[in-house]
Amino acid sequence: MKKVKVAINGYGVIGKRVADAVALQDDMELAGVCDIITDWRIKIAVQREYPVFAFNDDFRKQMENAGIKVQGTLSDLIQKADIIVDCTPKKIAAKNIEKYKEANLKFIVQGGEKHETTGHSFSAENNYETALGRESTRVVSCNTTSIVRTLTALKNAGLLKKARGTLLRRATDPWESHLNGIMNTLVPEKEIPSHQGPDAQTVDPDLDVITAAVKVPETLSHLHYWNVQLTREAGKEEVLDAFRTSTRVALINYSDGLSANNAIKELMLALNRPYGDMYEVALWEDMLKVQGDELFYAYVVDNQAIVIPETIDAIRAMTEIEKDSENSIRKTNKSLGLRQKF
Amino acid sequence: MKKVKVAINGYGVIGKRVADAVALQDDMELAGVCDIITDWRIKIAVQREYPVFAFNDDFRKQMENAGIKVQGTLSDLIQKADIIVDCTPKKIAAKNIEKYKEANLKFIVQGGEKHETTGHSFSAENNYETALGRESTRVVSCNTTSIVRTLTALKNAGLLKKARGTLLRRATDPWESHLNGIMNTLVPEKEIPSHQGPDAQTVDPDLDVITAAVKVPETLSHLHYWNVQLTREAGKEEVLDAFRTSTRVALINYSDGLSANNAIKELMLALNRPYGDMYEVALWEDMLKVQGDELFYAYVVDNQAIVIPETIDAIRAMTEIEKDSENSIRKTNKSLGLRQKF
Amino acid sequence: MKKVKVAINGYGVIGKRVADAVALQDDMELAGVCDIITDWRIKIAVQREYPVFAFNDDFRKQMENAGIKVQGTLSDLIQKADIIVDCTPKKIAAKNIEKYKEANLKFIVQGGEKHETTGHSFSAENNYETALGRESTRVVSCNTTSIVRTLTALKNAGLLKKARGTLLRRATDPWESHLNGIMNTLVPEKEIPSHQGPDAQTVDPDLDVITAAVKVPETLSHLHYWNVQLTREAGKEEVLDAFRTSTRVALINYSDGLSANNAIKELMLALNRPYGDMYEVALWEDMLKVQGDELFYAYVVDNQAIVIPETIDAIRAMTEIEKDSENSIRKTNKSLGLRQKF
Amino acid sequence: MKKVKVAINGYGVIGKRVADAVALQDDMELAGVCDIITDWRIKIAVQREYPVFAFNDDFRKQMENAGIKVQGTLSDLIQKADIIVDCTPKKIAAKNIEKYKEANLKFIVQGGEKHETTGHSFSAENNYETALGRESTRVVSCNTTSIVRTLTALKNAGLLKKARGTLLRRATDPWESHLNGIMNTLVPEKEIPSHQGPDAQTVDPDLDVITAAVKVPETLSHLHYWNVQLTREAGKEEVLDAFRTSTRVALINYSDGLSANNAIKELMLALNRPYGDMYEVALWEDMLKVQGDELFYAYVVDNQAIVIPETIDAIRAMTEIEKDSENSIRKTNKSLGLRQKF
Ligand SMILES: NC(=O)c1ccc[n+]([C@@H]2O[C@H](COP(=O)([O-])OP(=O)(O)OC[C@H]3O[C@@H](n4cnc5c(N)ncnc54)[C@H](O)[C@@H]3O)[C@@H](O)[C@H]2O)c1
Ligand SMILES: NC(=O)c1ccc[n+]([C@@H]2O[C@H](COP(=O)([O-])OP(=O)(O)OC[C@H]3O[C@@H](n4cnc5c(N)ncnc54)[C@H](O)[C@@H]3O)[C@@H](O)[C@H]2O)c1
Ligand SMILES: NC(=O)c1ccc[n+]([C@@H]2O[C@H](COP(=O)([O-])OP(=O)(O)OC[C@H]3O[C@@H](n4cnc5c(N)ncnc54)[C@H](O)[C@@H]3O)[C@@H](O)[C@H]2O)c1
Ligand SMILES: NC(=O)c1ccc[n+]([C@@H]2O[C@H](COP(=O)([O-])OP(=O)(O)OC[C@H]3O[C@@H](n4cnc5c(N)ncnc54)[C@H](O)[C@@H]3O)[C@@H](O)[C@H]2O)c1
Repeated sequence: MKKVKVAINGYGVIGKRVADAVALQDDMELAGVCDIITDWRIKIAVQREYPVFAFNDDFRKQMENAGIKVQGTLSDLIQKADIIVDCTPKKIAAKNIEKYKEANLKFIVQGGEKHETTGHSFSAENNYETALGRESTRVVSCNTTSIVRTLTALKNAGLLKKARGTLLRRATDPWESHLNGIMNTLVPEKEIPSHQGPDAQTVDPDLDVITAAVKVPETLSHLHYWNVQLTREAGKEEVLDAFRTSTRVALINYSDGLSANNAIKELMLALNRPYGDMYEVALWEDMLKVQGDELFYAYVVDNQAIVIPETIDAIRAMTEIEKDSENSIRKTNKSLGLRQKF
Repeated sequence: MKKVKVAINGYGVIGKRVADAVALQDDMELAGVCDIITDWRIKIAVQREYPVFAFNDDFRKQMENAGIKVQGTLSDLIQKADIIVDCTPKKIAAKNIEKYKEANLKFIVQGGEKHETTGHSFSAENNYETALGRESTRVVSCNTTSIVRTLTALKNAGLLKKARGTLLRRATDPWESHLNGIMNTLVPEKEIPSHQGPDAQTVDPDLDVITAAVKVPETLSHLHYWNVQLTREAGKEEVLDAFRTSTRVALINYSDGLSANNAIKELMLALNRPYGDMYEVALWEDMLKVQGDELFYAYVVDNQAIVIPETIDAIRAMTEIEKDSENSIRKTNKSLGLRQKF
Repeated sequence: MKKVKVAINGYGVIGKRVADAVALQDDMELAGVCDIITDWRIKIAVQREYPVFAFNDDFRKQMENAGIKVQGTLSDLIQKADIIVDCTPKKIAAKNIEKYKEANLKFIVQGGEKHETTGHSFSAENNYETALGRESTRVVSCNTTSIVRTLTALKNAGLLKKARGTLLRRATDPWESHLNGIMNTLVPEKEIPSHQGPDAQTVDPDLDVITAAVKVPETLSHLHYWNVQLTREAGKEEVLDAFRTSTRVALINYSDGLSANNAIKELMLALNRPYGDMYEVALWEDMLKVQGDELFYAYVVDNQAIVIPETIDAIRAMTEIEKDSENSIRKTNKSLGLRQKF
Repeated sequence: MKKVKVAINGYGVIGKRVADAVALQDDMELAGVCDIITDWRIKIAVQREYPVFAFNDDFRKQMENAGIKVQGTLSDLIQKADIIVDCTPKKIAAKNIEKYKEANLKFIVQGGEKHETTGHSFSAENNYETALGRESTRVVSCNTTSIVRTLTALKNAGLLKKARGTLLRRATDPWESHLNGIMNTLVPEKEIPSHQGPDAQTVDPDLDVITAAVKVPETLSHLHYWNVQLTREAGKEEVLDAFRTSTRVALINYSDGLSANNAIKELMLALNRPYGDMYEVALWEDMLKVQGDELFYAYVVDNQAIVIPETIDAIRAMTEIEKDSENSIRKTNKSLGLRQKF
């Protein structure tokens, strides 16, 4: 089988993880990674022997001055690829899209971009099929991915009437927490409802979901609290079984010492996950409560990792190297070592 | 008019504030404060010329060795008072109660104690009248006080059907943040629903309220997010008017730069509040949203300060120096400078 | 006696404190405060009934739209004042200087500006006299002020040979910790020696002082560790006596519970200091150690507050309403309530 | 060659790392790990197929109830081992020593114990030879290890006269930062000089070293600032060359983006180090400065990782499977992937 050649633009938090994940797939190969940086971050790509490209000639010169072997510019990379995953910062990707279109190159953007940039928003367990053969899609953000995964499971079980969530968002990513962040405070998002509810509806308009969001002073992961109106009274096991239908929701137990975001992070490191990444939504089984037709639960989202398997699946769907969502999800999960229980 | 003589047992976060507030009332006088400490904290009481008592003779000796002038022990203080406010740490007060009862001394405990210790739980705007002449009561905790205040306002306006809240709790108090705390993580409370819902019902069993709570790594104040099912569709102004009926809920605006807990704290300091204290629930007017019969809002609770006016009112109710709740609340608010708008 | 009319440009962390301090002096009056902001921060000035000015007509309009009564623009304020204290952010003041010079207005800049902007750097206990009658000076930064204060005391006692310091700097100020900061990390300053050593020498070239500095993830205050080579072997009491000659160094004791920056902050709040400000350098008496001819000690600097008394003295020196440094310092200290022991 | 059988008592921060490191050595085998815990932490050992032992029968029962397969108790483990590394919490190991002695089992304790417990303190590059064949030793703490490594390099180059350090210590370890920590403050150690100076002298009494230490609110790693009096004027390259003689000091450059503890941590994760561990002292090459005969520099210490290679070497020295320090260090470094430059 011919391998799909995947280019990555933007080798940051998401880009470097997508590159590593692509390198793990037996039906993909990494055409190269493109960025503008010259420091230790891009040297990681060099060390991994990934072909490195510069955004343009200016950055190419800077990179070369810093001793980095550069294979070409973004234009060159575009020529070498079957599909490109744009992982540049929020709102930058929108500007690159013209280039991809001109070159007839399929492209994926990340959650920092608007739905309108591609007209399609992706979450594997919900709408893989609708991305088959598409020219472009957007893998929804970390928060939205977790919402769609969990609510899709409840919806598929016929249990979901409406969901109301409070989202505690990590304030910045660990690698850059010397450059920005918040200190000893909480920062509510200006608007209630926050944008994540409508964003989930770009994947699945059927979801009745409203969220409020607040930035909290930690760098590890998000924590979501949910109050769900079920379609009917239900038992706790029934609800857990619904969540178990998702291969990307892992149940954890507070009573097992997994009682805070830092403990969960340490577990991931202990499992030898790269960067201590958790691709799954980690949902507390013993904390979950059903009262009549109301459901309450909380889960942790590793914002840096959760969209990585989704991106891999999006590549398969768009390039049609795998037409069946379950097959793709299974392959991806296996390559990354996802689990349904920690 | 004879002034009510008020004793304070435990001169910590709450006790030192209650002492200062008592000293401000024209119908009360401070009989003394009692503690076991010997460092800068109790020296503040000395400097304010409050009579200082030691828990027992051992501590008296330690205090005197540290150069603190001590007026006697708790037993002596009990003799001098008409009522005592126990502000010792969680679960300690329960042990002191026998002493107060033996001496036929009215007493108030704080929110760390169980409802059963007194059989009555107090929140001024909700149930002042039921405390008239009582021998004892419990001023409910910071979180619960804020819940009862806000939901009582909605209930009185006939708007409240049920309320679901997510409570972000500061992890420790500023003065002791070198001794304990959490770092770069979030710590969910083990149980959902958390205890604050049932606790609010000890004040008002009519409130249909369920909460989940999580400790967050900051020391300033709590932040609550609410989703309320109204009894009917309502307009935003109608809801705001309901909150305006409480003299202890102050509206704030995100658009005025009051967009985070730290900014609110700085405002309180700028208003020359002692310790930068905020006695009010600070509820975001512009963030509040009504969608059909659902209401969403968030507010900030200064955990160190919110129960202070409640405690003052509880003293008045129990000693019946003021039988009318509105009069007491008005007096208390004026002495502490409460506002309904920041 | 005619009062000196003092204008303040920039009503931020430093400006608002200088304004309050000016308002406390019996030989000064506040001509007005100038800024560009429209939110709760400037409303504090309105509430204190300080005359408010806008930087220019555009900002005047914005302020008026926000309901703030504006007395005029910076040009108007310049006309009304005998001296202006520029407390705008780092490097902005340099641009305003031309205006002040044109208007023949004496001016003070703060530590964010370079020495060259005025050619004179001020620290009251060291070089008050050299500022007498000057057209301009720069009050050195919070870190530098603390260095000059403490080393001047050692120098005057004939004890100082050379001083080597490690400066732990708070990462951002409390009011703005929702906008920027660092999280769960430490950020060394790029250069060792850091700029504070040479900066201290702009006040007193005799000081042999070298520093290294690092940003730490807290917002309360700086903490400095020093290793001083004395001119000779000395006793601990002798060294303490040297520090006691400064009226702006206050001794504290670890054994009194004042064992961390947060405890010191709480003490200042308990002393009813505005904003919990500490104008003094708080130096640990019991931690201080002399070994032969080497001295080791540590102190805490409230970065928001320490330059306030210095600025008041600088006004007196430049306007010559008080020619004697000791008189000015005594007046300032009394008005702000400085202490030599906590 | 017969492999040395190594037992580990205490499978926490240090113990789990020592176990993994032992498992990597071709001249050692892991006899088993012993602990008292029953949650996810010990399940990591199960998953790695390490033989698990319980401290005693009570804990054995608890572990078995939690579904963990237990091979026996500490007494059983002692029988199976040639040497035991005690990694229980501070001051606990001292109580286990009798058991090891009775069984004639060689043992290593960690830095939380006093020098007197074994009468020998170990740091591979300094005093490997003195541990040859010993019955017991103590691997000095993370802070002390870094001090001995760096100062030994300067001493061997004939450059070290005396060293004065300020040590910024991470407040707690990541896995337990939900259980304890400090928040928004700095906590000086009560005594100056702090204990690390004398502790370094238990390894090498020749070192003239004095330190002050302070806990800082982050969990990643320590940061040390040093001011060294050289024996003579020297050039920067000469000093760097001295540090380059240590194979466990790695030079880093601020200008390469490695400008803060978090960035260094992310680099270690990117290098696929287990847990993102850094065994080296990371010393800033471009920040280092020589002025005459004074040297200034700063470095980062990964407290969780730095003692791991030392412990491996201590095992080799005590069991004499390798008599030459350089050979042991080389083997250890290679197995763990240490580098001298990042
Ligand atoms: N960080 C997260 O947790 C997270 C989670 C889900 C989705 N996302 C989304 O993923 C996208 C990337 O975010 P990130 O966190 O990885 O950002 P990042 O800042 O970590 O990485 C962005 C990378 O793009 C590079 N870059 C910038 N301009 C470039 C250009 N013109 N050409 C090539 N490279 C350029 C940067 O140098 C950097 O290395 C955003 O849309 C974001 O919203 C982020
Ligand atoms: N801290 C808050 O935000 C907060 C808010 C609302 C209610 N409360 C409740 O108020 C009560 C007090 O809490 P706090 O935060 O003020 O505690 P704290 O620890 O700050 O103060 C308690 C004080 O009691 C003293 N003390 C301990 N044992 C004593 C004894 N035997 N006799 C006399 N004094 C003794 C301590 O030395 C200390 O000064 C608790 O019930 C708590 O749940 C606290
Ligand atoms: N923050 C500290 O701890 C501290 C300590 C000592 C010295 N300083 C120095 O004091 C100066 C002020 O710092 P700060 O911390 O108070 O800053 P800040 O940001 O808190 O305040 C600056 C104020 O100036 C206003 N401003 C900005 N542009 C303006 C303009 N064109 N005209 C009028 N006002 C304008 C801002 O709106 C703000 O209110 C700097 O030189 C700083 O280095 C600060
Ligand atoms: N954490 C660090 O950064 C660090 C660095 C260098 C040295 N050290 C030293 O290493 C030693 C261990 O510290 P740590 O940080 O790994 O501690 P830790 O608390 O992470 O681990 C200790 C482990 O010992 C177990 N334990 C407790 N009592 C036991 C018993 N009776 N029998 C068997 N196991 C028991 C605990 O359950 C835990 O798993 C201490 O001496 C410490 O000072 C720690």
